[in-house]
Amino acid sequence: MTAVSIIGGSGYGGGELLRLLLSHPCVEVKQVTSRSHLGEYVYQVHPNLRKQTQLKCEKHAAPEWLSKFVYGLPELHRAELASADYVSGVGCNATASNLALLPLVKAGLIDLSSPVIIEVKVGSSESGAEGNTGSHHAERANVIRTFSTFGHRHTVEVMQEMCVNDMSLTMTAVDLVRGVLATAHAKVKQGVTTKDLWKAYRAVANENPFVRIVKEQRGIYRAPEPKILAGSNYADLGFELDETNGHVVSMCAIDNLMKGAAGSAVQCMNLMMGWKETTGLEFIGLHPI
Amino acid sequence: MTAVSIIGGSGYGGGELLRLLLSHPCVEVKQVTSRSHLGEYVYQVHPNLRKQTQLKCEKHAAPEWLSKFVYGLPELHRAELASADYVSGVGCNATASNLALLPLVKAGLIDLSSPVIIEVKVGSSESGAEGNTGSHHAERANVIRTFSTFGHRHTVEVMQEMCVNDMSLTMTAVDLVRGVLATAHAKVKQGVTTKDLWKAYRAVANENPFVRIVKEQRGIYRAPEPKILAGSNYADLGFELDETNGHVVSMCAIDNLMKGAAGSAVQCMNLMMGWKETTGLEFIGLHPI
Amino acid sequence: MTAVSIIGGSGYGGGELLRLLLSHPCVEVKQVTSRSHLGEYVYQVHPNLRKQTQLKCEKHAAPEWLSKFVYGLPELHRAELASADYVSGVGCNATASNLALLPLVKAGLIDLSSPVIIEVKVGSSESGAEGNTGSHHAERANVIRTFSTFGHRHTVEVMQEMCVNDMSLTMTAVDLVRGVLATAHAKVKQGVTTKDLWKAYRAVANENPFVRIVKEQRGIYRAPEPKILAGSNYADLGFELDETNGHVVSMCAIDNLMKGAAGSAVQCMNLMMGWKETTGLEFIGLHPI
Amino acid sequence: MTAVSIIGGSGYGGGELLRLLLSHPCVEVKQVTSRSHLGEYVYQVHPNLRKQTQLKCEKHAAPEWLSKFVYGLPELHRAELASADYVSGVGCNATASNLALLPLVKAGLIDLSSPVIIEVKVGSSESGAEGNTGSHHAERANVIRTFSTFGHRHTVEVMQEMCVNDMSLTMTAVDLVRGVLATAHAKVKQGVTTKDLWKAYRAVANENPFVRIVKEQRGIYRAPEPKILAGSNYADLGFELDETNGHVVSMCAIDNLMKGAAGSAVQCMNLMMGWKETTGLEFIGLHPI
Repeated sequence: MTAVSIIGGSGYGGGELLRLLLSHPCVEVKQVTSRSHLGEYVYQVHPNLRKQTQLKCEKHAAPEWLSKFVYGLPELHRAELASADYVSGVGCNATASNLALLPLVKAGLIDLSSPVIIEVKVGSSESGAEGNTGSHHAERANVIRTFSTFGHRHTVEVMQEMCVNDMSLTMTAVDLVRGVLATAHAKVKQGVTTKDLWKAYRAVANENPFVRIVKEQRGIYRAPEPKILAGSNYADLGFELDETNGHVVSMCAIDNLMKGAAGSAVQCMNLMMGWKETTGLEFIGLHPI
Repeated sequence: MTAVSIIGGSGYGGGELLRLLLSHPCVEVKQVTSRSHLGEYVYQVHPNLRKQTQLKCEKHAAPEWLSKFVYGLPELHRAELASADYVSGVGCNATASNLALLPLVKAGLIDLSSPVIIEVKVGSSESGAEGNTGSHHAERANVIRTFSTFGHRHTVEVMQEMCVNDMSLTMTAVDLVRGVLATAHAKVKQGVTTKDLWKAYRAVANENPFVRIVKEQRGIYRAPEPKILAGSNYADLGFELDETNGHVVSMCAIDNLMKGAAGSAVQCMNLMMGWKETTGLEFIGLHPI
Repeated sequence: MTAVSIIGGSGYGGGELLRLLLSHPCVEVKQVTSRSHLGEYVYQVHPNLRKQTQLKCEKHAAPEWLSKFVYGLPELHRAELASADYVSGVGCNATASNLALLPLVKAGLIDLSSPVIIEVKVGSSESGAEGNTGSHHAERANVIRTFSTFGHRHTVEVMQEMCVNDMSLTMTAVDLVRGVLATAHAKVKQGVTTKDLWKAYRAVANENPFVRIVKEQRGIYRAPEPKILAGSNYADLGFELDETNGHVVSMCAIDNLMKGAAGSAVQCMNLMMGWKETTGLEFIGLHPI
Repeated sequence: MTAVSIIGGSGYGGGELLRLLLSHPCVEVKQVTSRSHLGEYVYQVHPNLRKQTQLKCEKHAAPEWLSKFVYGLPELHRAELASADYVSGVGCNATASNLALLPLVKAGLIDLSSPVIIEVKVGSSESGAEGNTGSHHAERANVIRTFSTFGHRHTVEVMQEMCVNDMSLTMTAVDLVRGVLATAHAKVKQGVTTKDLWKAYRAVANENPFVRIVKEQRGIYRAPEPKILAGSNYADLGFELDETNGHVVSMCAIDNLMKGAAGSAVQCMNLMMGWKETTGLEFIGLHPI
């Protein structure tokens, strides 16, 4: 059993991390710190953990931060993660955007002279456990609210990781608690066919235990859909190509608190410790939810 | 045109009152005050009023309050309101609870030796425009949250107006922005039939322009439903009697910001001024919404 | 490994049962039958099971039904279930209503000369996977819709199990996918105090691994709340007594597809087979959701 | 008073048209036809119209259709509409997409060598009053569901009206009953500045009574938001330009049943009849909703 301390555990990501680690067979959570909830029982902050732990939130000394972090997205940096000492968390928007582009970029199918447009649709838990005026239910329910037209910070991060030169990324809030759908629009190189795309996406799905392709001919869930991913660590990928004009749409759906936060963190930890990559992350997801 | 000043106009009730009065043919809104939004354009506080008014929020001197107010529910006190100088606003929970009981009480059909139980289900705009931890969308969405098991203040108010001796009133928040449904459970006096109830409810509906009976044999909207009342001043009443054991269930659905706040206020103003009771309150409601 | 066949597995309850049994350490699902989805892959019907099973839906012969079934609610009939050959599923409304009353009835605290009133608030998955006019999203979103004023069938079932003579049960649909909150209103016998109630509720919680008491002085989740129970088998109980007039409100929150359907079924199976009662039902629940 | 007959009035668009025309000062609704609801009272089909009309649905003879229709979007064809005999209804997706592009196209600001990408986010009432498997609340709630990756029919229509050569249009359903947000991504010609865009958008807003610009520096409602447009005929436009790389994002929010259906239809009728363009369409919209 490896002892784990969670520094700053009162947010939604911290709560999700706790949920995962309390069930993880290789670790024992020894400490949870929180400035804002010092002295409270952890289950008072995270009501779903009632009867699961008797830990209390402690006040912690500021840790010293080292400069050499590996970008914590296993689908991009699995090998480096295995030997890393420090790993940075990757935000949910960047995770979904990176993974939406990954198969296309890895197989070199995109025409980079045409801009890449990404629209990210997000749920309300993404903004954290601290509410604000805009997250008040009466204002936040029933919205389609574009809150960041160019999402500058995320745009730069994805452009770097995906080696894209001309990109625009827009973020819109919708009425949902958990979930992110990143939809990437690009043009493929001349001659690229749907068959080429299948090959590229299958390659990525085969290499990564938490990547699935969702591209059905019938039923309701034909394309990636965050609705059925709550609590799961899967990143569901889908795509569609219009062969007449080269427009490709690539989608990635994740649970922002799992694959977009706590789930990826545990996945990274598993790789760093040499444990099975999927340990503690087996939850399938619920339907309907 | 009568000049109107709204003292404290930045909340949801104030916004709704502004919406109504800006379209009211007999009044002109001359002033809106707000401590928290002093100097801002009114449409910056109430985005739906964009292009409807160029008024700004002012800082106001504290008004002196007089002690003789009439309880501002026209269905209970229409005659007094016509000669009143000061009228108190009636909260949405009390309004819906009072109206759910009104036909039964007025016709003397309830067995008062058995307790009256009222369950009030409410939307999120009821808690006002100032958010709190519990109104954060990620926490407030998807709830069935009992936040006041005995609703003391409202219970006393309804017991007084309805002359009920033994009553319990419970309030539960559900995932909806606008709307209140009060469900009152009681026992009828021996021998009372469904026919007697029809007579009692029809009498109340006939005397009050904003009371409708909803009791359909088929379709989706068989019982009072706040969903279709958003923006409307109607109070929809329904009932069901189990003649085998005397249990009666009486329901009242309203829009908490209209019939439960700004709508009733305008209705009272119309009565006080001798104008037609329904002036400025003609909006039918939307479907679906 | 015990082989399991699910007869009629294409509904929401069947899907949830499949999710649980695919992860259950003692069983292997050998067969899933469905009339309406004959020949389809199970994951086409239940999209969250993608990559979890390659089973297909079969057409099955009608099984013969035996007459001696035990009522499948472990909190009421744990001993009988251990030796039962056939167990009936208990619906979610009856489960929540029974459990809300259980501590009060078991400890003999209710004054049975006063009627018991139960209000059940339910989510949309309760009506099953087959939609109807009323479940169309545009009609079903944002509702507080009383769809069964006296809930006759459920009323009789709960009155029998709980030995209550005068009861009324009302069912109201709210905007939520998963979850049931049953709120029971009754009068306690003269002299009964909050302390007596604590004792009664603690006794039930101690005897039953999936019953928790939720009665907090602060925070958002002070009372039982189905929101945080999605995917979990817990039944959260809460109560409040007004000692001045004897009114007691008792609440039970469950996930209708888990403790209200598939979860209780697996719990019964565990008892019938002599396995640990909680096997395969350890999922904690998500927050926020 | 002009007599009006509504052919096919039982859908959501028909209901909204009825709501508008019942309050329209220049018309009288003489007839409503419906195949599926023949003989029913109109208020049984549209519950918000209870007490507003005693009309019944009739069975109608199939009308003969003429070939010369004017495209019924006043913002594009106001002059032709004034002399038109027949006007085609314009769908909500095309309306929002056309209006999002209109200021940019009219002022000639777009670089047409770069593709135009439009993402349309829609609510559930768009799919009509007849439900289907995918519109079942348990499946449709909490979704971000891409249901048409290339939206072929709408794409062609917008490309024609807006004279765009290379375009891709994607449609995604979100959890909302009423509302459409079309977000158009394009590149501006070299040298175009934010100031040029303001001029172009102001010109369109000034010419059209139902077009507003929403581009605030603070508050929650900084960009066009369908949430506050329910029941209103406004089309709210917003934009953002990244002057460093020429990416422009243009947004149009509408109520799909009003400006996207019944509202535009009444606006066209007003123009055809020579009445004031805004007659019967004055409703401001609600907040919060």
